[in-house]
Amino acid sequence: MATEKKLDDLFLDTLRDIYYAEKQIVKALPKMAKAAQSPELKAGFETHLEETKGHVERLEQVFELIGETARGKTCDAILGILEEGKSIMDEFKGTSALDAGLVSAAQAVEHYEMARYGTLKTWAGELGHSDAVKLLDATLKEEKATDEKLSTIATQAVNLKAA
Amino acid sequence: MATEKKLDDLFLDTLRDIYYAEKQIVKALPKMAKAAQSPELKAGFETHLEETKGHVERLEQVFELIGETARGKTCDAILGILEEGKSIMDEFKGTSALDAGLVSAAQAVEHYEMARYGTLKTWAGELGHSDAVKLLDATLKEEKATDEKLSTIATQAVNLKAA
Repeated sequence: MATEKKLDDLFLDTLRDIYYAEKQIVKALPKMAKAAQSPELKAGFETHLEETKGHVERLEQVFELIGETARGKTCDAILGILEEGKSIMDEFKGTSALDAGLVSAAQAVEHYEMARYGTLKTWAGELGHSDAVKLLDATLKEEKATDEKLSTIATQAVNLKAA
Repeated sequence: MATEKKLDDLFLDTLRDIYYAEKQIVKALPKMAKAAQSPELKAGFETHLEETKGHVERLEQVFELIGETARGKTCDAILGILEEGKSIMDEFKGTSALDAGLVSAAQAVEHYEMARYGTLKTWAGELGHSDAVKLLDATLKEEKATDEKLSTIATQAVNLKAA
């Protein structure tokens, strides 16, 4: 008979979800950087690519801390979010609104990650994994900072060009 | 020859995306309320269902303000996010961790909406649609409040039971 599933199962499940998502983001960011027209936005995506590689490593440390193998689980949410970003890139290619669309797509990605890392950080605390809390919080802070940076780039460099 | 696509096209495109998303959320929330075990979470989903119906109406007002017909456009992101929520409901059905999973799924939905409404509000301002800014901001504030309320319900009533 199966043991009743608990919060630690949900934690592991969600950890696998965001691990898969981060790896998809590592693949998507170079395409977004290549597509971006404004130098600020291009540089922003390139910086965030390096950060994202660090997020993958932090997740691997969290898996290790809880004694589990690092393994992803298909995340339909990130696939849908990235698919929408791809549509915008295709639909607005070569237009002055492309960068505004790229920022919008990237902020949808950041918000998904903020939701997941916020949840995981809370659960890690409740499960007593204090070292995991620190790792998850470090990434959460970087995702929030990236979201704010994207807002600044959008209002200062991108949207006015598109309007 | 097609006119070059600009920020107003992107605004309309994204408005259709979130309009579709809100209608999907109206369908999903009663299922989430039915599944929820804690009375606080059940009530939270029921309240948010009523708010979400208001968000659909506000979007219809925004379409009217810009002289466009209210029409949705398939939003792969919300379909992916809701599909993940459904998987969690199936996988953790009848367990003490179900409510924690429901909160996590709902917060992913809220964050998606916060990203989209934040973007739409900024663009509406830049396009000079000041009445639309007010409508979009009113919904954005409700989504943020719902997200915070879910965090409170999770830490006070849900997660400790699941741990």
